[in-house]
Amino acid sequence: MRQYIVHEVIRRTLITNPDQVVVSGNTRLTYGELYGRVLRLANSLKRLGIRAGMTVGVLDVNTHRFLELHYALSMLGATLHTINFRLAPEHMVYSMVHAGDEWLFVSDVFMGAVQPLVSKFPNWVILSDDPGVALPASAAAYRYEALVANGEEQELPEADKVRDSDIFSIFYTTGTTGKPKGIRYQHKQILLGALQLFHHLALHITGDRVDSSDVFMPLIPFFHIHAWGMAFFPPYLGSKLVLPGAAGPTEQVALIRREGVTSLNMVPTQLHMLLANPDFGHVKVLTGGSPLASGLARRATAAGVKFSLIYGGSDQLGTAISVVPEGVEPGSQEALEWLRVGMRPLPMVEVSLRDKRGREVPHDGKTVGMVWVRSPWLPEGYYKEPERTARTYTDGGWFRSGDLGVFYANGGLYVVDRERDAIKSGGEWIPTGVLEALLSEHPAVGLVAVIARPDERWGERPVAIIKPLTPVTGGELRAFLQPKVVEGKIAKYWLPDAFEFVEDIPLTSAGKIDKVALRKQFAA
Amino acid sequence: MRQYIVHEVIRRTLITNPDQVVVSGNTRLTYGELYGRVLRLANSLKRLGIRAGMTVGVLDVNTHRFLELHYALSMLGATLHTINFRLAPEHMVYSMVHAGDEWLFVSDVFMGAVQPLVSKFPNWVILSDDPGVALPASAAAYRYEALVANGEEQELPEADKVRDSDIFSIFYTTGTTGKPKGIRYQHKQILLGALQLFHHLALHITGDRVDSSDVFMPLIPFFHIHAWGMAFFPPYLGSKLVLPGAAGPTEQVALIRREGVTSLNMVPTQLHMLLANPDFGHVKVLTGGSPLASGLARRATAAGVKFSLIYGGSDQLGTAISVVPEGVEPGSQEALEWLRVGMRPLPMVEVSLRDKRGREVPHDGKTVGMVWVRSPWLPEGYYKEPERTARTYTDGGWFRSGDLGVFYANGGLYVVDRERDAIKSGGEWIPTGVLEALLSEHPAVGLVAVIARPDERWGERPVAIIKPLTPVTGGELRAFLQPKVVEGKIAKYWLPDAFEFVEDIPLTSAGKIDKVALRKQFAA
Repeated sequence: MRQYIVHEVIRRTLITNPDQVVVSGNTRLTYGELYGRVLRLANSLKRLGIRAGMTVGVLDVNTHRFLELHYALSMLGATLHTINFRLAPEHMVYSMVHAGDEWLFVSDVFMGAVQPLVSKFPNWVILSDDPGVALPASAAAYRYEALVANGEEQELPEADKVRDSDIFSIFYTTGTTGKPKGIRYQHKQILLGALQLFHHLALHITGDRVDSSDVFMPLIPFFHIHAWGMAFFPPYLGSKLVLPGAAGPTEQVALIRREGVTSLNMVPTQLHMLLANPDFGHVKVLTGGSPLASGLARRATAAGVKFSLIYGGSDQLGTAISVVPEGVEPGSQEALEWLRVGMRPLPMVEVSLRDKRGREVPHDGKTVGMVWVRSPWLPEGYYKEPERTARTYTDGGWFRSGDLGVFYANGGLYVVDRERDAIKSGGEWIPTGVLEALLSEHPAVGLVAVIARPDERWGERPVAIIKPLTPVTGGELRAFLQPKVVEGKIAKYWLPDAFEFVEDIPLTSAGKIDKVALRKQFAA
Repeated sequence: MRQYIVHEVIRRTLITNPDQVVVSGNTRLTYGELYGRVLRLANSLKRLGIRAGMTVGVLDVNTHRFLELHYALSMLGATLHTINFRLAPEHMVYSMVHAGDEWLFVSDVFMGAVQPLVSKFPNWVILSDDPGVALPASAAAYRYEALVANGEEQELPEADKVRDSDIFSIFYTTGTTGKPKGIRYQHKQILLGALQLFHHLALHITGDRVDSSDVFMPLIPFFHIHAWGMAFFPPYLGSKLVLPGAAGPTEQVALIRREGVTSLNMVPTQLHMLLANPDFGHVKVLTGGSPLASGLARRATAAGVKFSLIYGGSDQLGTAISVVPEGVEPGSQEALEWLRVGMRPLPMVEVSLRDKRGREVPHDGKTVGMVWVRSPWLPEGYYKEPERTARTYTDGGWFRSGDLGVFYANGGLYVVDRERDAIKSGGEWIPTGVLEALLSEHPAVGLVAVIARPDERWGERPVAIIKPLTPVTGGELRAFLQPKVVEGKIAKYWLPDAFEFVEDIPLTSAGKIDKVALRKQFAA
């Protein structure tokens, strides 16, 4: 019986699209060539002793080599640890030790950063275009391209022994508090979950509607759920894939134009950066990870960018993606607004909004509840963390996300806040996402974060932190919000008590606004 | 952990699209109402003693009641036997006994036909719009609507105990030789397999490209793989579903227009019949089960019908659907021809063409091989038929389809024939599908079948059986084929030795041309 096994995805391209290409910087490989490299790599890794059940850490940007490692390690039945290089150094090392990485595959881009670790980990492979790249001073140290060159190009018997319930990968969350949490996924979970995200994009009327004629480019790094599934989806379809490597925004735009990229993924911060380049536009974008401010959405639309918003996370995979609801004219202003805020759970994913006692809240577009998620690809919990697992994953198969949302009567889900980012004032939630979206529409506002300030009377009260584009006062912003109270869009007590202006706003390793740091800074 | 369980599909509509409708004849139900009826039905069935592991036969055309039974039986963990009413009566009874049907749910449309069986099977439920419909003279006989009316509208604890590896359904092939073969599918197999068919239609550039805004109508009966998956897909998306019940072609066309149907499935014979109605057209059609003659494809295109061709079967589920290959302009004549003949395996499905010794044949657009299929949803074999299973399903996880095909270098698969329909002349295969397609282009040809006639010298030689639209001679048809030999489209020895003209051509229970009957008739 054939199963949902990662390397089956790349095997398929041999029949359907062997001549389609994967572009990675200046490297161009057909799927046929890539498959040959994967086989040779896998045979070399087998000779090095890498085998089923072993964990292998990979530290690289999005390159063809990292892609090849996905498939070669799958054939060996080994577990791929996609190392999160945006973690603080001590957390990164923690993740490598915690996952039990026995081999480290590191791009030359990161060799400087990992130099202090060479004595801690015995086995190294260096990924580089330079055939003479220096090797770390370790007993076992190899050049990736030499392993590819010297491996036999033949199928491995191990590949047929991999089962869909074997662990394929482990990765660590970039939480803003505490140690990173590891999550392991079986082959079938990661494939079914990651591919469903794209099925949803193909099945529904949404901004980033994809098909096999698209040219895909992941700006989300592989360590974030395998680039939100893009390590699997283009091969699954036999479509062209463009990997940006270490390219910055300017080079990314050049790559988009040169290779005819049509569909990308990125967090809103990246979208913000790319829109500064006048050559960027007329592409489809899947974005998420933090709310998409209406001002940013407007600028994107003006540049010909069609977008969809995704909600999900490392510990739940993709959960919901925005769609144009039935009865709303696609392309209309209303459709655009739904694509920015109104998400529909992916097929086979169930979302429930719960109050503090675990009761479902009404779907009235107003009542805030915590997002609970149930799906066929939820992991069993956090790796070797029974207590954190018990707090988050229920016996009934639910994942308690810690995010707050509302459901509209038309089935649209609006995720407003992380619970810990929301403000509790006089016993009532104030969703900061709503305030931030409204404030982002003011022409003088660049970035905005609304955070809680401790308050003796109300418990907490909102304060707006603004990085202005042009000079503006708190009074002007307050006056800008006032009509929204009259219109009923926000409650009067949601109005921030203060507006603070800053030169820059701190970001987390995932590119999201670091509200924990801001709360500390503005606690007084 | 949530799993791929059939009733999870209908539960989802409660959140995403409770007000979307299912139309069944004159009955209109929202998904919310339908879900309520399913719960009440399931509770009543539980009271009647229907429980996990029991097999229940259903004999009905495509109605909302048959749809409800899919989901109610899923909640109980029972197995649904979708009885094939196009089988010969003795084969139908054989299937009911072989499957072990303990209850029979029968539409009043079929009550006359099953009257002789009332003494053989003890437990009956009659499906009818008429609240006073006569019940069979059996100890246990109930009216379906009374069961729905009297059940409690509450969730069943049994529903949470169903596992994705439990058997959901059993159905029987409509083979042209021997006893029908039963095939059982687990919940996850039937869902993953049936839904993948629609994922493919959404992901690729094809004629019947679907999305959630489509209005679906299955003209394939539920007993054919749950209407080729349409019992699941519209609820999975929350889309409108129109069930034609016992409607004939004229009423089907009226229903298409009244309800705004956009996407249908049917065999080519049905397409042929619908095209006789000038009001039919401007819809998308998934067709298959037998080759789509080029003449029929041309008439469909002229009527504004966009089509895709599917290859699959009860014992392998959906395997491949036609797509427009890369580099071919969608909408062009070339694209149209690829949609008629050039199929691509569904994502996660592997197709291999093998010669007699099991070796892969070249992908050169010429060499004929037997279609072998590997997929995550292949069944274990034929139910209680170890010998037939061993002949067809290999240890390596392959299904040997018995069909012949060629692979083009661009990945397109052209299924030319059933092996038993193909003609072996002088040791070489003559693919009858190619000859039939060419002959169908002659304006005087209505239906055509090319069959083998025993031949002392060559083993077998082709004979063309023609149902003409207007008078035509064998000489004229031979002259029509002659240039195709010159163009290299067919070999000279493929030219039929004889052309026989008939008033009608016999069809099998699946609506395909019955070549076994024709071979007998024209053996001399």
